[in-house]
Amino acid sequence: MNSAPVGIFDSGIGGLTVARAIYDRLPQESTIYFGDTARVPYGPKSPETVTRYSREILHWLLSQGVKAVVIACNTSTAHALDALQAESPVPVLGVIEPGARAAGKVTSGGPVGVIGTAGTIASNAYARAINRRRPDVRVEQRACPLFVPLVEEGWFEHPAAELIAAEYLAPLRAANVDALVLGCTHYRLLKPLLQRVMGPVVDLIDSAEETAIALEKTLRRQGLESPLGGASEHRFVVSDDEPRFRQVGSRFIGERLGKAEVVALG
Amino acid sequence: MNSAPVGIFDSGIGGLTVARAIYDRLPQESTIYFGDTARVPYGPKSPETVTRYSREILHWLLSQGVKAVVIACNTSTAHALDALQAESPVPVLGVIEPGARAAGKVTSGGPVGVIGTAGTIASNAYARAINRRRPDVRVEQRACPLFVPLVEEGWFEHPAAELIAAEYLAPLRAANVDALVLGCTHYRLLKPLLQRVMGPVVDLIDSAEETAIALEKTLRRQGLESPLGGASEHRFVVSDDEPRFRQVGSRFIGERLGKAEVVALG
Repeated sequence: MNSAPVGIFDSGIGGLTVARAIYDRLPQESTIYFGDTARVPYGPKSPETVTRYSREILHWLLSQGVKAVVIACNTSTAHALDALQAESPVPVLGVIEPGARAAGKVTSGGPVGVIGTAGTIASNAYARAINRRRPDVRVEQRACPLFVPLVEEGWFEHPAAELIAAEYLAPLRAANVDALVLGCTHYRLLKPLLQRVMGPVVDLIDSAEETAIALEKTLRRQGLESPLGGASEHRFVVSDDEPRFRQVGSRFIGERLGKAEVVALG
Repeated sequence: MNSAPVGIFDSGIGGLTVARAIYDRLPQESTIYFGDTARVPYGPKSPETVTRYSREILHWLLSQGVKAVVIACNTSTAHALDALQAESPVPVLGVIEPGARAAGKVTSGGPVGVIGTAGTIASNAYARAINRRRPDVRVEQRACPLFVPLVEEGWFEHPAAELIAAEYLAPLRAANVDALVLGCTHYRLLKPLLQRVMGPVVDLIDSAEETAIALEKTLRRQGLESPLGGASEHRFVVSDDEPRFRQVGSRFIGERLGKAEVVALG
């Protein structure tokens, strides 16, 4: 048993959808969420820069005494997971493995579709993770750079969002994918629209829930769970622009956010 | 006479539209363009962070021997122009004054519309600059966060761009603005679409051209012009992700971009 907090980080606010899934599944766990809002977005940045930023955040979270770290950011997982696992004294989980595992389970033979930011798609990390389990399954990928700003505007059901989704997803529909991995934490909020565009028979895989399950298993296996029924606390820390984090973040986490601390890194 | 280069900087690639206007108007001037691609976008960042980044770039440009600096970024101009002018030994120009001056000239009494990023609009810098000249003119402002990613996707004439523009510009059309300032360097590439949505009688003001005129006047007044007919050189420097800069930047500058140097700041 260990009641230290779990560290969760993202380039900004998108990872709050993962935090939400962790609160729901592991209500006894305390958390520290770090959103690197001064340096968001990671998507278009180089692998070296994303890894440097991610290492800075890991070390800051370790200085706060976390017992495990969840990289709630697809771009950072794609580029930095190996480096962070190699140097961290506590377990580090990403969002890609859990999503890829779920895709491997639900597909009846593929192809499997993956959508994400330019950085995540260019990294090919989902295709590699899916093919490690299911070498037979073809993976069709598509970068969707307009989805993040659409979600941050709150235009989940705007006619423009529908047109943009139709255009981005057309090649995946044409390829007849039987599962679609939402490879960016923001996309969870577009799920009803994406399901409508893809049609009802395509399984949409949202890695937030799968990541919470993976965290639960890791904590249990390593004897790191908090005692059930104890009080849990959730801290929010950002590197810049706190009012915007609170305003947009509330939509992501599904409840009002209190004041976030501001910590400058780098 | 002074054949040292002019420094031009932006948070990323948008300022290349201003560089283009400077090349066209002042073909004898050499330039160094710095795109802070590691830290783009500045729009959602706090005034303090934007000022800190802008000062770092100013000092790097000064270390390269520039004779004048153009802040080809509306967000940086809004937050950092005064600070940079106060500490620079060479003239520093922003993009807001020239755009505001042009708006003050063409309006027949207003209201005048201004569109830009969340940061530029929240700063109220255009409204203040316009009202300094024309206190009688009402200024209607609107943040358009989806325009930058639309331009970077190259969707200048996509039906989704038309829907998004119609939604963003509806309050400006309802207010019957007689001039519309494009308060973000990216928006120049949406000009035909924006003109169509606003209708033919509204004057669209693109500050790139106005800024090039202001630079010409400043250099002449201070005896800093390069000799006519001399060879000019254009250097491109970015803080990250050079291949993307070249690919997307070529669209902005209207010609193929050569290799950019990479210099890390901060």
